[in-house]
Amino acid sequence: MRVLGVDPGLTRCGVGVVEGVPGRPCALVAYYVVQSDPSEDLAQRLLHLDRRLAELVAEHQPESVAVERVFSQHNVRTVMGTAQASAVAVLAGARAGLPVTTYTPSEVKAAITGSGQADKAQITSMVTRLLRLDAPPKPADAADALALAICHVWRGGTRSKLAAAAQAAAARQRGGRK
Amino acid sequence: MRVLGVDPGLTRCGVGVVEGVPGRPCALVAYYVVQSDPSEDLAQRLLHLDRRLAELVAEHQPESVAVERVFSQHNVRTVMGTAQASAVAVLAGARAGLPVTTYTPSEVKAAITGSGQADKAQITSMVTRLLRLDAPPKPADAADALALAICHVWRGGTRSKLAAAAQAAAARQRGGRK
Repeated sequence: MRVLGVDPGLTRCGVGVVEGVPGRPCALVAYYVVQSDPSEDLAQRLLHLDRRLAELVAEHQPESVAVERVFSQHNVRTVMGTAQASAVAVLAGARAGLPVTTYTPSEVKAAITGSGQADKAQITSMVTRLLRLDAPPKPADAADALALAICHVWRGGTRSKLAAAAQAAAARQRGGRK
Repeated sequence: MRVLGVDPGLTRCGVGVVEGVPGRPCALVAYYVVQSDPSEDLAQRLLHLDRRLAELVAEHQPESVAVERVFSQHNVRTVMGTAQASAVAVLAGARAGLPVTTYTPSEVKAAITGSGQADKAQITSMVTRLLRLDAPPKPADAADALALAICHVWRGGTRSKLAAAAQAAAARQRGGRK
């Protein structure tokens, strides 16, 4: 199963692609950080992120997309941009017809390190080991996206199948709705 | 100038289209409320909003799009969905190549009623009078979207021209960037 993980951010958005099956080590496919300039117009920033994510989905053909769920306890000013970037990421998967699953930061941390309280350094270190990389991913922003993708391979297989079935059922119910 | 205004919301998103020139009464073109079911999957909700907005932009061919700027002082749980819906709205304009301007609620209130503190009933009443409607827009959610569109016609002509010029300059500077 190939999964594209997105750690949403408006200024720096991490993207990680891995391949694997539940319970076995995943293999790294690629990772990126999509950046935009905070001094630029919001519309141009969202459009740039939208286009890059569409390109990466088209290039890597993942079977599903995992996006970090945005949390309200964060800094409220930052969280607005993060929420907007997450909408673009979720939409990029949905528009490509892929199942999209969101995970809370603690779910990802627990799946990767065994502890929902793990810090950024622990995540990066575990991602480096789990993917058998020679060095930690650079820029570091990509490590969280890779962690999300690994988490989804390990936990998400079932969830995404359930979600796909639910979506298919909902689509049948809606009938011809575009 | 034809403007499409969006009052973003994930469950109910107001859309209003008006035509006019600064300093003169605007004419109503159309208004809508795009709804999505809170029990549905986030990806499907964002996709539905994205498709409806793309359809409405294609149908009404506005020259610019005005979107309410999301504020952090609101209820934090609601604001996440609103921020995500606003990203979809801004993106719908940007993807169609239109200038997109955001306005704070107080800017819209001040433009329409003369007071940044006006309440919902005053906005609805002024929109009804300004567009010379026989009755207030129904559902009421659309009134805020129409207020945004009127505000942009009155205030935004200049701003959107400036924004378009700035965007064009930025695009030249970026050279061949997609």
